[in-house]
Amino acid sequence: MDTLEINSRMKSLPHWDLIDVSGMPEIQRVYKLKDFREALNFTDQVGELAEKEQHHPTILTEWGKATVTWWTHTARGLTPDDFNLAAQCDSVYESKSYLQK
Amino acid sequence: MDTLEINSRMKSLPHWDLIDVSGMPEIQRVYKLKDFREALNFTDQVGELAEKEQHHPTILTEWGKATVTWWTHTARGLTPDDFNLAAQCDSVYESKSYLQK
Repeated sequence: MDTLEINSRMKSLPHWDLIDVSGMPEIQRVYKLKDFREALNFTDQVGELAEKEQHHPTILTEWGKATVTWWTHTARGLTPDDFNLAAQCDSVYESKSYLQK
Repeated sequence: MDTLEINSRMKSLPHWDLIDVSGMPEIQRVYKLKDFREALNFTDQVGELAEKEQHHPTILTEWGKATVTWWTHTARGLTPDDFNLAAQCDSVYESKSYLQK
């Protein structure tokens, strides 16, 4: 996926940042949450989504926030899967389904 | 907790590293796990332990590993709680209870 396509897809993910990790592009969003419990529940739901799709992010779980990062190891960069999964994470966040557990 | 006491307690946690984060000491361990599912289950169990004790780490969940970091925000450093919880994380890991879900 070239820079032009990446920039185009980033426009549909206004809360995500394009970051450079040792020369490799990745996308990252920090989700604000109420406390550790909410961050843990959200992590669990993003993790279950990743398992279902068999495409996996890194998730940093902290008190009051969760940071999700997507990239595709085999492509050494970004693929449409990364952007699709990022959008699905936003849907989980907006649905507030992580409030129930 | 002073350097002498920290160094003494580190001896009982051979798999943990003492790290410096902007001049503040923290302790960190990378737990090796089989895949993303195991890392997610382990994260969940460490998170539940943290909620039970009301003392919270950061947990980085990735395919095949989980990195747990403890420190005490209010102390701007390490307290006995951090070492106790680190030892409890090791017990979770050794019990392999994260294999069931």
